[in-house]
Amino acid sequence: MTKTNSGNFFEDFAVGQELHHATPRTVTEGDVSLYTALYGPRFALQSSDAFAYSLGLPQAPLDDLLVFHVVFGKTVPDVSLNAQANLGYAEGRFVEPVYPGDTLSTVSRVIGVRENSSGKTGVVYVQSVGRNQRDELVVDYKRWVMVNKRDPESPAPERAVPKLATALPLAEIEVPGALDFRDFSTELSGSPHLWEDYAVGERIDHVDAMTIEDAEHQLATRLYQNTAKVHFNQRLAARTRFGRRIVYGGHIISLARALSFNGLANAVKIAAINGGLHSNPSFAGDTISAWSEIVDKAEIAGRNDVGALRVRTIALKDGESGEFPLKDEEGKYDRSVVLDMDYTVLMPRRG
Amino acid sequence: MTKTNSGNFFEDFAVGQELHHATPRTVTEGDVSLYTALYGPRFALQSSDAFAYSLGLPQAPLDDLLVFHVVFGKTVPDVSLNAQANLGYAEGRFVEPVYPGDTLSTVSRVIGVRENSSGKTGVVYVQSVGRNQRDELVVDYKRWVMVNKRDPESPAPERAVPKLATALPLAEIEVPGALDFRDFSTELSGSPHLWEDYAVGERIDHVDAMTIEDAEHQLATRLYQNTAKVHFNQRLAARTRFGRRIVYGGHIISLARALSFNGLANAVKIAAINGGLHSNPSFAGDTISAWSEIVDKAEIAGRNDVGALRVRTIALKDGESGEFPLKDEEGKYDRSVVLDMDYTVLMPRRG
Amino acid sequence: MTKTNSGNFFEDFAVGQELHHATPRTVTEGDVSLYTALYGPRFALQSSDAFAYSLGLPQAPLDDLLVFHVVFGKTVPDVSLNAQANLGYAEGRFVEPVYPGDTLSTVSRVIGVRENSSGKTGVVYVQSVGRNQRDELVVDYKRWVMVNKRDPESPAPERAVPKLATALPLAEIEVPGALDFRDFSTELSGSPHLWEDYAVGERIDHVDAMTIEDAEHQLATRLYQNTAKVHFNQRLAARTRFGRRIVYGGHIISLARALSFNGLANAVKIAAINGGLHSNPSFAGDTISAWSEIVDKAEIAGRNDVGALRVRTIALKDGESGEFPLKDEEGKYDRSVVLDMDYTVLMPRRG
Repeated sequence: MTKTNSGNFFEDFAVGQELHHATPRTVTEGDVSLYTALYGPRFALQSSDAFAYSLGLPQAPLDDLLVFHVVFGKTVPDVSLNAQANLGYAEGRFVEPVYPGDTLSTVSRVIGVRENSSGKTGVVYVQSVGRNQRDELVVDYKRWVMVNKRDPESPAPERAVPKLATALPLAEIEVPGALDFRDFSTELSGSPHLWEDYAVGERIDHVDAMTIEDAEHQLATRLYQNTAKVHFNQRLAARTRFGRRIVYGGHIISLARALSFNGLANAVKIAAINGGLHSNPSFAGDTISAWSEIVDKAEIAGRNDVGALRVRTIALKDGESGEFPLKDEEGKYDRSVVLDMDYTVLMPRRG
Repeated sequence: MTKTNSGNFFEDFAVGQELHHATPRTVTEGDVSLYTALYGPRFALQSSDAFAYSLGLPQAPLDDLLVFHVVFGKTVPDVSLNAQANLGYAEGRFVEPVYPGDTLSTVSRVIGVRENSSGKTGVVYVQSVGRNQRDELVVDYKRWVMVNKRDPESPAPERAVPKLATALPLAEIEVPGALDFRDFSTELSGSPHLWEDYAVGERIDHVDAMTIEDAEHQLATRLYQNTAKVHFNQRLAARTRFGRRIVYGGHIISLARALSFNGLANAVKIAAINGGLHSNPSFAGDTISAWSEIVDKAEIAGRNDVGALRVRTIALKDGESGEFPLKDEEGKYDRSVVLDMDYTVLMPRRG
Repeated sequence: MTKTNSGNFFEDFAVGQELHHATPRTVTEGDVSLYTALYGPRFALQSSDAFAYSLGLPQAPLDDLLVFHVVFGKTVPDVSLNAQANLGYAEGRFVEPVYPGDTLSTVSRVIGVRENSSGKTGVVYVQSVGRNQRDELVVDYKRWVMVNKRDPESPAPERAVPKLATALPLAEIEVPGALDFRDFSTELSGSPHLWEDYAVGERIDHVDAMTIEDAEHQLATRLYQNTAKVHFNQRLAARTRFGRRIVYGGHIISLARALSFNGLANAVKIAAINGGLHSNPSFAGDTISAWSEIVDKAEIAGRNDVGALRVRTIALKDGESGEFPLKDEEGKYDRSVVLDMDYTVLMPRRG
């Protein structure tokens, strides 16, 4: 009997099934430094212990997306080793802040299966929950992936497609307990623009851009212990229609978020990922830029120091972020668009 | 007088000579994160403080090979700066676990010298011993390298070739004191296969593969403070028969070990390196895969929670690990083979 | 109104102006590991807690240049986002040692402005001061940059060019309080050559060389949260006369310092940066080597355990460090020279 994990195929999934993923991971200051080196984020809360302390936290928390990638990475060997594509994310929310020294584990539950008409693949919907060593919820999200069938002849399971919310209602956004933004320094944070200054419908060109190298996305993806073959094996990739290793989609999300600092410097923390879609693959050599639109905004119950902004950030490869490309008249994504992400951030208010 | 270290040449070595290597190194969580980013290891014991604690350790120890590379790196300026090739390793054993915050130092002793028939080079055998800040032994190994002579005319030293054991006898394998595998969770470790499930002679295709980038192996080799010129200087490399920078052999060992997780996930710790050979050089662009054979297995005296497995792992570049290539009929290594390593691992038992 | 930072242009600067730069940064062991992986420094004081402790420090301090780069990085969005060139450094001095866990912030003061004859650009002189979370001075330096004017028609400000010292007088060099070199081990430091052994005028070929990869300098520059566009955006770079991303000048400084270990292993700490000049840009693929000249030496008042050496280190790309190239007869830099740096180091004495 083989001792090698060949991953689950479409017919191995059933609604209600629970997957306890392997390799708990203690995250550290080393991971934070690598994350900084990989994307160059400059959000003050995650960059400075002193700044975090001034806002009521014991020290700088990890970047929310670093937490997301570590929690996500664990699901790959069980969920997406035989995936053809990561189709989307929904209903993501960040709860307890994560600090260096915390140990993260992930459990997923299958919440939907739907065979494709070809009979060769199916879509699997999972809810993945990341917890720390005290069993506190740190991140919770849903994603759906297209997974190969082991045998195209095997019967289709009963179709079950979950209802997914478009967005976490802004009224349900919570601020992690201790955070208090009354002493927030816009001098240290790098921008005078606060929650009051953003208008629904406003578009922001994030101006900057970064070119991806293979060594960079490989380092990142391994840091998250994400083992999906397509990111690492050029020998295999050379035989695909792309001819190159595909960049882990989360790498693009993190690049876009870091680039968004220039225009959204005070979006100190991600509260929710409402939806996300990788509309095109990215490769080494691609230059990633980004623009954002303010989709919605709301006060947070009982708080006048901080508000919620719902943001849509579009990442481009080799595109002009100042032209805000998105979709054509038929609703097809512009070929430069690689990521369409809808998320909610916390931003300090003038009070 | 020049203040630059030009390294030792063959005629500078004499049996019994002791080399106290420079630059003690405090290893940290930062090194652990980089090691994860460079190779993507997923062994639970080294990945999670909580998991390590459940097995009796105070926190997650460093990967044994990270310790090996740091200890090895220190020997390069004194032993192998003028080496043509790193010929082999033997009698390696890991003793005290190493934790973030420990400071490692290395002392080597020359245990053999043998001039080659050409008179231009000789083989030097050294035993290198790595210790922590409490002077506890962490790793001890022998290696032999082909070193240039400063002057081909200088007389040959008396030939002295040490007897090297084929393998650390399995009966001598010890488990670091505190480790207790009775609560070992195969759910968290990622595989149900334990010591009882492996049969001598069994072959495992590790399936996955990773393509090496120059930035990756350079980052790794510098992290280990290994200064051997051949890894860093493309200007020099362009004039060699390879035309490219050679990847540090230890980088391949770590890649192979990380790949071996898929099939040997419960090989939680390396106890011994019985032998190792870099049969071909590797370069950026090479895609590394691996397969293993179980060479031997044994109980460990007084323990029914853990056993020893002697494993031979073969790393390939641009080869088919599923075809288990090794040597041709004349005993010559297949051209795809870059590493042939014989080592002993600890693996939990059902008890 | 745009929320994107478009940086300051020449006409935005005025003598006396104070710039409080954004994003305080807690430096960690993760940053130290990355710094080691990026450059391979082997100076014992920064490498080993145990060694640092033996010299009177609580633990290994950060490499002085890592501190410099982090402090420098913060100034970029306010000072040099619209810079054409980083012209030079002067009067740099390192005061309090920085340890993992310290949080660094930077404040700059404009000390000079001078419009260029073209009317399209001007030179801005700033003094930047980095402090830790206890408001202690860690590094203080001056630099001048050529900055674009927003509008070539706008009137020239009154010319003000600061007088800059050629070097921090050796008599003013101080040793950070607790450092005591009486137990300095040359065995552990890697070289027997101490302060007494260096002669003014002596030249040292550092022999080794390293080839730069794009992934490496991008990781480094982002680690320092330095956002200057020219380092990251290949799409933009392709349209410039270089056609490639320019390597952050500080990356070359750190490479040169790490290479200088081979010949200056006991130059344990940088006390001052007297001057620095990037005479040519560097790009991925360049192989960097270095040579040094001892410019001056002096005793330090009240100390017989340590002395000061003023050193000039020249970094080359694709050059022969053994030929000590510098300038031609007309005083023009040799085309292989990329860095000319004049700095003062502390080096233990025989006492």
